[in-house]
Amino acid sequence: MTLNLVKGRPSTMGDAYPLNTTTLIRHAARTHGEQEIVYRTPDGGWARTDYASTYRRIRQAAGALRRLGVNPGDRVGILDWNSLRHFELYWAIPGLAAVMLQMNLRLGPEDLAYVVRHSEAAFIAVDETLLPVAEAIAPLCPGVKGWIVMTGKPLSEIRTSLAPLHHYEDLLAADAGDIDWPLIDETSAYSACYTTGTTGRPKGVYYSHRAIYLHSMAMASAVGATFDDCTMLITPMFHGQCWGLPQMATMMANKIVLPGRYMAEDTGPLTEAIIREEVTITNGAPAIFQPMLEHIRASGLKPDFSRLRLMSGATEPPLAMMRGFYEETGAEVIHAYGATETTPLVTINRFKRGLRRSMDAEQLWDLKRKQGLPMVGVDVRLSDDEDVNDLPHDGAHVGEICVRGPWITTRYHDMPDSADRFTPDGYWRSGDAGVIDGNGYLKLTDRIKDVIKSGGEWISSIDMENAIMAHPAVLEAAVVGVPHPKWQERPVAIVVLRAGHELTADGLRAHLAASFAKWQLPETVVFSDSVARTSVGKADKKRLRADYAHIHEGSEQ
Amino acid sequence: MTLNLVKGRPSTMGDAYPLNTTTLIRHAARTHGEQEIVYRTPDGGWARTDYASTYRRIRQAAGALRRLGVNPGDRVGILDWNSLRHFELYWAIPGLAAVMLQMNLRLGPEDLAYVVRHSEAAFIAVDETLLPVAEAIAPLCPGVKGWIVMTGKPLSEIRTSLAPLHHYEDLLAADAGDIDWPLIDETSAYSACYTTGTTGRPKGVYYSHRAIYLHSMAMASAVGATFDDCTMLITPMFHGQCWGLPQMATMMANKIVLPGRYMAEDTGPLTEAIIREEVTITNGAPAIFQPMLEHIRASGLKPDFSRLRLMSGATEPPLAMMRGFYEETGAEVIHAYGATETTPLVTINRFKRGLRRSMDAEQLWDLKRKQGLPMVGVDVRLSDDEDVNDLPHDGAHVGEICVRGPWITTRYHDMPDSADRFTPDGYWRSGDAGVIDGNGYLKLTDRIKDVIKSGGEWISSIDMENAIMAHPAVLEAAVVGVPHPKWQERPVAIVVLRAGHELTADGLRAHLAASFAKWQLPETVVFSDSVARTSVGKADKKRLRADYAHIHEGSEQ
Repeated sequence: MTLNLVKGRPSTMGDAYPLNTTTLIRHAARTHGEQEIVYRTPDGGWARTDYASTYRRIRQAAGALRRLGVNPGDRVGILDWNSLRHFELYWAIPGLAAVMLQMNLRLGPEDLAYVVRHSEAAFIAVDETLLPVAEAIAPLCPGVKGWIVMTGKPLSEIRTSLAPLHHYEDLLAADAGDIDWPLIDETSAYSACYTTGTTGRPKGVYYSHRAIYLHSMAMASAVGATFDDCTMLITPMFHGQCWGLPQMATMMANKIVLPGRYMAEDTGPLTEAIIREEVTITNGAPAIFQPMLEHIRASGLKPDFSRLRLMSGATEPPLAMMRGFYEETGAEVIHAYGATETTPLVTINRFKRGLRRSMDAEQLWDLKRKQGLPMVGVDVRLSDDEDVNDLPHDGAHVGEICVRGPWITTRYHDMPDSADRFTPDGYWRSGDAGVIDGNGYLKLTDRIKDVIKSGGEWISSIDMENAIMAHPAVLEAAVVGVPHPKWQERPVAIVVLRAGHELTADGLRAHLAASFAKWQLPETVVFSDSVARTSVGKADKKRLRADYAHIHEGSEQ
Repeated sequence: MTLNLVKGRPSTMGDAYPLNTTTLIRHAARTHGEQEIVYRTPDGGWARTDYASTYRRIRQAAGALRRLGVNPGDRVGILDWNSLRHFELYWAIPGLAAVMLQMNLRLGPEDLAYVVRHSEAAFIAVDETLLPVAEAIAPLCPGVKGWIVMTGKPLSEIRTSLAPLHHYEDLLAADAGDIDWPLIDETSAYSACYTTGTTGRPKGVYYSHRAIYLHSMAMASAVGATFDDCTMLITPMFHGQCWGLPQMATMMANKIVLPGRYMAEDTGPLTEAIIREEVTITNGAPAIFQPMLEHIRASGLKPDFSRLRLMSGATEPPLAMMRGFYEETGAEVIHAYGATETTPLVTINRFKRGLRRSMDAEQLWDLKRKQGLPMVGVDVRLSDDEDVNDLPHDGAHVGEICVRGPWITTRYHDMPDSADRFTPDGYWRSGDAGVIDGNGYLKLTDRIKDVIKSGGEWISSIDMENAIMAHPAVLEAAVVGVPHPKWQERPVAIVVLRAGHELTADGLRAHLAASFAKWQLPETVVFSDSVARTSVGKADKKRLRADYAHIHEGSEQ
C-alpha cells in the first residue's frame, strides 16, 4: 500500500514518542500496582498476584531472554494455555522489540511446524503439559535454538527429548529484574499469528506495537471499559492475541482472571469464578457461552450478571442464548466481528441511543444478532464483484466486506502471491459477504465462497443455518452448497438434534418455509451426530462440501 | 527531543495509514449520521441538526476555504464562542492539512494581535458579535489576507472596517460539498493555541493530528464515554480546544450540545438545557459549576443527574460543591489536570475499584480533591530541584511535575529561548509542585513560583487557600508570599466574604490553626470585594504579589 500523504506545518508535540506496548503494562504496574491478577493453577485451584509483582517477573523474563540471546526482531514462540506465564511473555518478548509468535496448539503438527519454520522462530517457551506437542514438531523445526519449559517443578523432574532445554523459573530467578526497556519504533512487529483458513497453508500476520496500542484504546471505549472492570480471558491467548483483550484489560488496569487450560468440563469452575471474582468483561464464542447458560440453569445459581458483558465472536450468537443470559442473569452478550488479519475488531454490536428509544424489544433483539457498527478508525467498504466501489448501505445490497485502517493487515508475511487478498488501495478482502443497513449495522450473509448459487439465484447458507438452529429440536446445524447437474448448486443441511428430540426432513422444511422461498428449501437433510469443525470451532464447510459432493449426481430435478 | 528508537521486524499492518482527525467526523457522519447536534442561536433559543447535515456543511466549508486559497500548513484563525460554525471549522480547517488557530478572545488586543502575527495567520473567521474584537486587532495584523464573517444576516447588512471581507454562509452555499479529503501526515499540526501565562509573551503550542486523535481515545476511556452519551461543551472552544472534548465527543458519536456564548447570567438556561437534553458529560471550572449548583438549589429543580459527569479543571473543586452536586443531584464532579501544553489531559481523578471498597466515605471525598491518576500514555515524573530524578511516590516528597508523551509539547513554536521549560530527555516542566501518593494519585501543592519560602521552610499557598475557602463565611480566597525583611517571605491572605457573613482575621487564624503550624499562619489578612484573576479565571498571583509587595517593609517580626 502506497499512500500519498500531505504534509502540513510541523507540530510542537511529542510525535516522535512511540506507541509501545510496554507503556501499557508499566502504567498498570506503577499506577495500579496493587490491582489483582487471579490465575488458575495446574491442579485446578486459583491463586492471586498483582500488577506490581507480575511486572517484576515480566522484567526478569525480558532480562533473561536478552541474556539467552534474544535480539530485536527475533521471533519467540509460545505454546501455552491462558496462564500467568503466558501473560508475562505477552509483555516480556515484545518489550525487547522481539516478536511473540502465537502458536495455535489446535493445529496439526505439520501446520504448526510450518508456522515455526516460516516465522524462523529462534526460541519456543512451552508449558509442561504441552511438551508432547513441542516434541512432535521439534524434529520438523531444526532452526529452533532453544526450548524453555514453563513449570513449577525443578528441571531435574522434567523428562523430554527437547534440547537445548531451559527452565523458565530458573531463568527468572537468575535475573535482577532491572531491565531498561528500549523505546521501540512503533511499526515494529509486536507479535505474529498465522491464519487457520481451511484452504492453503497458514498465512502470517505480524501485528505492530502501534496496531496493538491503538486497538486496545479503541476496544476500551467500544466496550466501555474502566479500571473498575474485571476481565476474564476465555478466548485462547495463542490465537489473535485473545482478541487484544489482555492488552486492553492491562491498559485499563482491569483486574484480570486467567482461567488456564479451558476444557469442556470446566464450565462449572469457570462460571463460579465469574461469580466469585465479579467478572464484568469476558470473551468467547457461543460454543462456550451456551453450556455456561445451561450450567447456570441446571445448577440454580441465579447469579447477578448485570455488569457482565460477554463478547462473542466466531459465529452469530443464537438469539435464545442472548435472551436467556439477559433475562435470567442480566448479562449482555455483545456480538463482535473480525479476523486474524484485523487484530481483530472490525465491528461491535452496541445499541445507539436513538434506536434504543425508537425500536421495540423485538426489533432490538433482532438488531443484536447483527455483527454491529464499524469501530472508529476502521474503514469498512461493501465491495461489488468487479471493482472496489462501496455499495449502498441500505440493508439490501450484498457485497464483500473490505476493511482498512491502522490495525488491519495490508499484506501477508513473506507471501508475495497473496496480493489478490487486498485491493489496490490497501483494503483487506475479508471473503465475507454482507449488507450494511441504513443505521450503519453490518450483517454477514455468508462467506463469499459459501454462498449457494442455485438456478442463477443466491441462497445464504448462514441465514438458513440460523433458521434451522432456531428450531427447538436442533442443537447444531450447517448448510453447504453442493454441485447439482441442473441447478448448479443445491443446499444440503446437516443437522444434529438435541437429545430426546425428534424432527423429520419434512418437519424441518415446514419450519423453514416461514422464512424461505420454496425453491430455496433443501431437498437433502442429513441427520448426524456432529458437524465437522475447524480448529477454531467453525463448521468445516470445505470438508462438508467434499463429503456430500456427489449426492446429487444423476439428479435431473 | 531526540529518541533512540530500536527497530524490530516490520509488521504487516496498515502502519502507514495516518491518524487524521477527519477520520473521526467522517465516521460519526457515516455511522451515526442521525445523531443530534443541539446549538444555541444568537437570540438565545436552541436549534437542532445532526452529524450528517453538519458533515455536509463541513465539507462545503473545507471546499470553500481551499478555493479561497488556504493551502496545507496555512494558519486560519477563529474568533467565536462555542457555536455550530466553530464546530464546523474544527474539522474543515485541519481536514485541509491547514492549522486552526485558536484565538482567546479574553486576551487584550496587543496579545491577541501578537498571536496572529506570530502564527502568521492567513485568514480569520469571526462571529458577527465579535467584529469589534477583530477590528481592534486588524490594524496590528497586516499579514491577514482575508476576514470571514460568520452570521445569519446577508453580507449587505454587515457594517465593518475589515477588508477583504468574505461571508461564511455565502462561501458554503457556493460549494458542492464534494471535497476529497487528503490523507495527512499525522505529525502535521491540527491546531495552534497560545498560552496565557502571566509572565512573558504568549507561547505557541501546535497540536498534531496524531496528538488529538490519541488524546481523544484516551479521554474516551478515562471518562468512560460511549455513544450513549450526550456532551455539552462549556469550556471555551477557543482555548486548549475545549480540552479536546469536541473531538472525543465526535469520536464517540455523542449527541453534542453547543451553548454558544456563555455569560454569567446564562446559568439558568444552561442548567435547564442540561436537564432537557439529558447531558451526561460536560466540562468547566468551579467558577461555572458553583453558580449552577446554587441555581439548582434556588430554583427547586431537583434534577436527576445520576448519569452526569462534570469534568472540572483550572482549580481544585471545593469539597462542599462536589458533595452538594452528588448528594443533591447525583452528579459526579471529576477533577482533571492539564495545561495548554498537554492537549490537556495529564491526570484525571477516578476511584480505583480497590479504594472504593477499602476507604470510608470521608477518605474517598478527600481523595476526590486530588488531581488524580496519570492518563495511560503520559509519563509523569516528580522532579527534584537539581536534576531529573523521579522523587518517591509516597505522598510526602514534593517535586515539580514533569510530563512526556505523544500529546505533550516538546518545544514552543518559533521560540528557541524556551529550552529551560523542557528537560534534556523531552519532559515538559509544568511549573507545578506536587506530590504523588502511594496509590498513584497526584496532588498539586503549588505553582513552583507560588510556593512561599518562609524562614527556610515552605508553605503551600494552595493548601492555605483551600483551608480558608472551607470556612463557611468565605466565598473566594487567594494566598501569596510577599517579601519580608526577616523571614524572606510571609503569606498574605486576600479573602472575599459571602454576602451577609462576617469573619475577623483572628477568627480566620483560629480556623486555620486546625491544619497549619502557628508560624505558617498569615499575620496579614486582607478582606476584599474580589480577587484579581487572569483571563482564564485563575487568581492573578503576579499582580497580587505586586499589590502587596511593600506591606512588610520595616517589619522586624
